[in-house]
Amino acid sequence: MGLSIVNYTRSGDFESEWGVLSDKYIYPIDENFANHHDLMAAYFSSKEDFLARQHRDPVSVDAVEFNSPISQNIQLFCQGLNYADHREESGASEYTDEENLIFMKASSSICAPNADIMRPQGCELLDYEIELALVLKQAVPAPIEIASDDLPNYVAGLVLSNDVSARDFMFGAPMMQWFRGKSHRTFCPMGPVLYLMDKEDFKYLDELELTLKWNGVVKQSAGTEQLIHKPAQILSEISSYAAMRAGDCLLTGTPGGVLAGANLQVGLAIILNFTNDERRQKKFTKAQLARTRFLEPGDVLELSIRSRDGAIDLGSQRNTIAQA
Amino acid sequence: MGLSIVNYTRSGDFESEWGVLSDKYIYPIDENFANHHDLMAAYFSSKEDFLARQHRDPVSVDAVEFNSPISQNIQLFCQGLNYADHREESGASEYTDEENLIFMKASSSICAPNADIMRPQGCELLDYEIELALVLKQAVPAPIEIASDDLPNYVAGLVLSNDVSARDFMFGAPMMQWFRGKSHRTFCPMGPVLYLMDKEDFKYLDELELTLKWNGVVKQSAGTEQLIHKPAQILSEISSYAAMRAGDCLLTGTPGGVLAGANLQVGLAIILNFTNDERRQKKFTKAQLARTRFLEPGDVLELSIRSRDGAIDLGSQRNTIAQA
Repeated sequence: MGLSIVNYTRSGDFESEWGVLSDKYIYPIDENFANHHDLMAAYFSSKEDFLARQHRDPVSVDAVEFNSPISQNIQLFCQGLNYADHREESGASEYTDEENLIFMKASSSICAPNADIMRPQGCELLDYEIELALVLKQAVPAPIEIASDDLPNYVAGLVLSNDVSARDFMFGAPMMQWFRGKSHRTFCPMGPVLYLMDKEDFKYLDELELTLKWNGVVKQSAGTEQLIHKPAQILSEISSYAAMRAGDCLLTGTPGGVLAGANLQVGLAIILNFTNDERRQKKFTKAQLARTRFLEPGDVLELSIRSRDGAIDLGSQRNTIAQA
Repeated sequence: MGLSIVNYTRSGDFESEWGVLSDKYIYPIDENFANHHDLMAAYFSSKEDFLARQHRDPVSVDAVEFNSPISQNIQLFCQGLNYADHREESGASEYTDEENLIFMKASSSICAPNADIMRPQGCELLDYEIELALVLKQAVPAPIEIASDDLPNYVAGLVLSNDVSARDFMFGAPMMQWFRGKSHRTFCPMGPVLYLMDKEDFKYLDELELTLKWNGVVKQSAGTEQLIHKPAQILSEISSYAAMRAGDCLLTGTPGGVLAGANLQVGLAIILNFTNDERRQKKFTKAQLARTRFLEPGDVLELSIRSRDGAIDLGSQRNTIAQA
């Protein structure tokens, strides 16, 4: 079995600490790693030494606040349209599976798993996207063809993530504004668990269940067996053109059930219709709001990812939407 | 006056060195800074100490090969459609100036100023974009409104850059693939000069001339007074949603004259027409190639940026296109 790493701050305290989560208790680690890359390097260089650094006296999870186990100085690669049902609801079902859609989120969007998600001023179409994130074990500086069997050499761990998206900002500039629409601060709650995998855990990559509730109602529910582009394939493809570093994350895409989904094709027809910005944006926003309500201040999201047999549990997030 | 910093390797040598460029000579600096942020921090903390580290014995520019003065561990923010003539040739002239189009390039695309630009396998629409890059002086972690007068506190220097673009890859996935189309290795020659500005140099930000030649013929020629969104405005806007770090770069956009330009509107109409990927991509590529030849192996690009009065000279790049 692998190890569930958390980063947390004790109630009333200011300093963050690293620990190992087991059931409802955290066993603090006797070293203040500057970031998750340093922690991972220590763990994978000697698991025995690493485990020997755990305190015997645990802290209850009720006595802490979780921070993101992923620090902000990384590259955050994101996979678009990687579940068949999300691809369909986005109006892109006719596409062949040949071309991977990859975009970047600013890593300053990373926030604590239970942090408030701040709806930016002027944003009306705030949306969620539950995603499984992979954390890179080693740098991949040059093109490489990674076989599935070889994945344990490249992927260190798994993290529950929410790729929060401002749909109106994505479509607010000519030619699609992926970066801004995905990059606002608090647009990427991560954690609480950084699950560092052992070799035998890799079979679970196809057996993880993602669940997202919006105000108590299940909106996204899917298994990772539905991923169109598999991790080894995506990482190989990114390596063909860009360099990755240890600690970088890949968000593997979201399943169906996002708010902007069902009528996006119509929306796209509008936004791609080269009228001027403001008119186009208003039309799109109006058409979207006519179909469904989007995230509003006070709304609550609850997310979780775990394997069907319970062996792997990436924990759960609970976020309230607030107005920036 | 500011200082022209270069990073170079002497002929027959392997180690890179930092130096100060003056006319045709380089005065080596007596410290091996790990990257440009460290060098900038040393320079701005004490210019006198920094200048005292220069060797008296210069090296001729003919005896070295220039490396990029910008290291790869940065965020590379890019401004799209920021010159009126490029906006027009891209079919986006009706847009108001309100919304900034920002995207990210992978920093592994950064390469030496005279490096071969590798045309990726399968790319038929390889294009150039000369751009002025600004280098951040300090971290900007939170939203801030930067006044033009305050720019010297945020911008450390200037670098000549080429935002090389694979137009067919940008449009190769549903919903625009900005990141991949801009991020291949060697898609961002930078340098040779990192010009560290003094306060009085900032008046030149509106008086720099950009020139790009393709096989000896001038294709792009414009002045930075044409920038639609000015540096202080762009940086303020990015700060409103994302954090920037010291050493990060902002490519401020390219003027008219790129190869994919004149008929892009027609191309867009095709690509945005939700047919399947392959068919769409082929149509777009065919329409583009019917208008003009794109960059091919053996082609030579020559780029330069300088102020009209010659006071600021960011040097010149000369790149040959090669097949990857």
